[in-house]
Amino acid sequence: MEFTGAHILSIKQFERADIERVFKVADSMEPYAQRRRVTRVLEGAILGNMFFEPSTRTRVSFGAAFNLLGGDVRETTGFKSSAITKGESLYDTARVLSGYSDVICMRHPESGSVAEFAAASRVPVINGGDGANEHPSQALLDLYTIRKELADRGRPLDGLRIAMIGDLKHGRTVHSLCKLLCLFDNVHVTLVSPPELAMPESVVENMREAGLGVIVSEDLAHGIGHVDIAYATRIQEERFTSKEEANLYRGRFRLNQAIYTQYCEPNTVIMHPLPRDSREDANELDNDLNLNPNLAIFRQADNGVLVRMALFALILDVVDQVDACARDVNWYSGSR
Amino acid sequence: MEFTGAHILSIKQFERADIERVFKVADSMEPYAQRRRVTRVLEGAILGNMFFEPSTRTRVSFGAAFNLLGGDVRETTGFKSSAITKGESLYDTARVLSGYSDVICMRHPESGSVAEFAAASRVPVINGGDGANEHPSQALLDLYTIRKELADRGRPLDGLRIAMIGDLKHGRTVHSLCKLLCLFDNVHVTLVSPPELAMPESVVENMREAGLGVIVSEDLAHGIGHVDIAYATRIQEERFTSKEEANLYRGRFRLNQAIYTQYCEPNTVIMHPLPRDSREDANELDNDLNLNPNLAIFRQADNGVLVRMALFALILDVVDQVDACARDVNWYSGSR
Amino acid sequence: MEFTGAHILSIKQFERADIERVFKVADSMEPYAQRRRVTRVLEGAILGNMFFEPSTRTRVSFGAAFNLLGGDVRETTGFKSSAITKGESLYDTARVLSGYSDVICMRHPESGSVAEFAAASRVPVINGGDGANEHPSQALLDLYTIRKELADRGRPLDGLRIAMIGDLKHGRTVHSLCKLLCLFDNVHVTLVSPPELAMPESVVENMREAGLGVIVSEDLAHGIGHVDIAYATRIQEERFTSKEEANLYRGRFRLNQAIYTQYCEPNTVIMHPLPRDSREDANELDNDLNLNPNLAIFRQADNGVLVRMALFALILDVVDQVDACARDVNWYSGSR
Repeated sequence: MEFTGAHILSIKQFERADIERVFKVADSMEPYAQRRRVTRVLEGAILGNMFFEPSTRTRVSFGAAFNLLGGDVRETTGFKSSAITKGESLYDTARVLSGYSDVICMRHPESGSVAEFAAASRVPVINGGDGANEHPSQALLDLYTIRKELADRGRPLDGLRIAMIGDLKHGRTVHSLCKLLCLFDNVHVTLVSPPELAMPESVVENMREAGLGVIVSEDLAHGIGHVDIAYATRIQEERFTSKEEANLYRGRFRLNQAIYTQYCEPNTVIMHPLPRDSREDANELDNDLNLNPNLAIFRQADNGVLVRMALFALILDVVDQVDACARDVNWYSGSR
Repeated sequence: MEFTGAHILSIKQFERADIERVFKVADSMEPYAQRRRVTRVLEGAILGNMFFEPSTRTRVSFGAAFNLLGGDVRETTGFKSSAITKGESLYDTARVLSGYSDVICMRHPESGSVAEFAAASRVPVINGGDGANEHPSQALLDLYTIRKELADRGRPLDGLRIAMIGDLKHGRTVHSLCKLLCLFDNVHVTLVSPPELAMPESVVENMREAGLGVIVSEDLAHGIGHVDIAYATRIQEERFTSKEEANLYRGRFRLNQAIYTQYCEPNTVIMHPLPRDSREDANELDNDLNLNPNLAIFRQADNGVLVRMALFALILDVVDQVDACARDVNWYSGSR
Repeated sequence: MEFTGAHILSIKQFERADIERVFKVADSMEPYAQRRRVTRVLEGAILGNMFFEPSTRTRVSFGAAFNLLGGDVRETTGFKSSAITKGESLYDTARVLSGYSDVICMRHPESGSVAEFAAASRVPVINGGDGANEHPSQALLDLYTIRKELADRGRPLDGLRIAMIGDLKHGRTVHSLCKLLCLFDNVHVTLVSPPELAMPESVVENMREAGLGVIVSEDLAHGIGHVDIAYATRIQEERFTSKEEANLYRGRFRLNQAIYTQYCEPNTVIMHPLPRDSREDANELDNDLNLNPNLAIFRQADNGVLVRMALFALILDVVDQVDACARDVNWYSGSR
């Protein structure tokens, strides 16, 4: 794909070569994200960070990524203060807001809204999540994390064995990740969930057609036994007929250090899209895993900044100029 | 007027020469707003963007204008999180907040509040809208748009023929525009509204005293027949005794492509202060006008950035330095 | 204490030499805060300004201080839009958010929450107020103001005579200030409040053990008679059984120009943590004091920027580089 000036609306836009391009640029952003170097390549550029649905971490991650490239950020949060409530069309909103910025990141509660917005925008738009539909930068950062964790263990993405655990029916994140995995070779996916929360059949079929090995299971212990990645998601109580029923399932899909030690291969990577519910009666990923070096959930969040920096640099066509506008960091960054 | 260090509270401050000064500076901001050039003239300066009433587009427009000059923006939105709800006076709020910034833009729901705030502020204050009272940068960008659209058609502001349509009683925007038009020669204004929503008599009289030709009409077709500019505003349902009554009027003041083709002279410019209500049963300016090149509503929004950049540059006395701190844009800006 | 990389969570961390170090650095920030000079020493650094409880002035003060050093600010306001409401632990929130920034300022409604957050953060954290517990930068700016006002009158901090007036039971500010005063010699404190709102006994005992002279009084006239500083706080109506009872007390602890002239020594400095309640029936510090040059409440707010700049510069270890990255301001700043 041609990145320069492109909207990033869906992972369907990406072929394998595109993903590898994004990941290579993301790798090159590490010195900046880790505060060893400062670049000002986008000095003077403005990101319109338009969150018509709140999401602190995604909003701040996009904003920080743009700041790390030297640009400024103008922001809006929430719906009530927006002209949309006065009957303004997405077309009008897009025509106006795109006049204020060089690139827009938009989150909106309705499926398809960001694509509609992008069609009217005069600048590139990144989908920061449109309802149950897509959140492409999250899918990319998940895959980028898998690639990086495997590389640290001397392995490529091809040949990946991954288990996805929890609410696979409603999780936008795992749906998108499954689609991306179809671009790679010899991938084996184990889907572990209660039957009520199983991965949609269409997603499973897509994977099988693409040549992936797919196993559907209700047994956590078996599912996480021979994988490189255990990708946990939230068991959503509100999807069940009662809290009691939810708790039945929840007990069977909770990952903690004891279960990890008993069933996982050494160095199995633990991932989660975050936020995880850390309340005593709900935690899908126990806090006793916090000291396990294979818990990659915070590295996942860090990788989000790298991937978003890469998308901005590619869309605005400054990849080759990032290092030329750089210098060493002159303040304390030793605690990272 | 002396711009350096001045508060911009009301269009009454402006004489014709002042307006021409603002417009000339606004013209010079185009390379920056269109992302051909970057300037850092206000690098290190801080705008306090204080919106005690929400307004996404005005807030983002002021913030983007300041960023485009190289400055930083500190912002607040809404009332609830402010000390004003704890009984703090505007005097105290102004004394404190003006210590944090180099210039303040303030919106507040109460008439006169921004002037009261400015009297206590230690830095220049721009009125970003104080209730039903004033919103001077909106009036200036409207007039700037008229001037620019006329210039594109080979005409000066003097001799302008303009129709204002819709709720002329409550529209702060059109009241201010009428006052500004009094500074120009040989202007003809047609006021098209239901009688209940007629332009206030005082505004009409002011225009007549200033030598403008004013026609009051209830007939859209007649009103838009021989004008350079058709300036539409929102018909506000809540002003009528019933929705049915509002709909009666609404039908008579809706502008769409068919009506435009039938009644307007070629190249008549269509303006609107935005947001327009695009819902099927409410639209004062039909979406079928979106491809009409004379629809200037989004150019109006773009011009807002230019006018606000000009106000900042004049107030902070950096007009002569803007170009000296500039360089070419090095990122993709081709989609504008 | 070692400032580089340190969290600033409590005034208990500070010894006298530390305070003097902060104040000396704060002094050196004046040319920047007064817009005579611009420095870009933190260009490329990001402050995470995380306000899980609203506070316009503290939030904007921290943000402006960071901007004045050249850094960028990413911000969040309020609780509802945060993952904390979905059951995320402070540990997780801290691990994630600290990946986005170089330093974090955090306000949170619960006592102890900021220390818990800091323990998991990968970057230094400044406590911007955690419930009834601590707000160390406020205590520092209060003491800095006292020192500066005394210096203007040719006096050192040692030997200070100060009266604290109003609700001394619930005022986090005065509790912290009392603790800081224990580090200085020959200080005399007069505590003026209704008995229901008296300073906690533990705070009083601490001061006496540290060698301070402490007088407890219910008599405003007597209390403010022979002091260098009259530090007023808000009488909180909601702490009393009825508004009538509150008004009885309120009348006895109100400071206005007439009382000031009658009872205070010349040049007694008037302070208040702000916001003050300026409503007619509530004002603890009358508006008729606004022209009294000894009213230091707005200088207090200004000093907050200096103290916060100093904390950032010390924590990020750039004190020695601030001036080297500086140049003269090139815009109008004459109204300060």
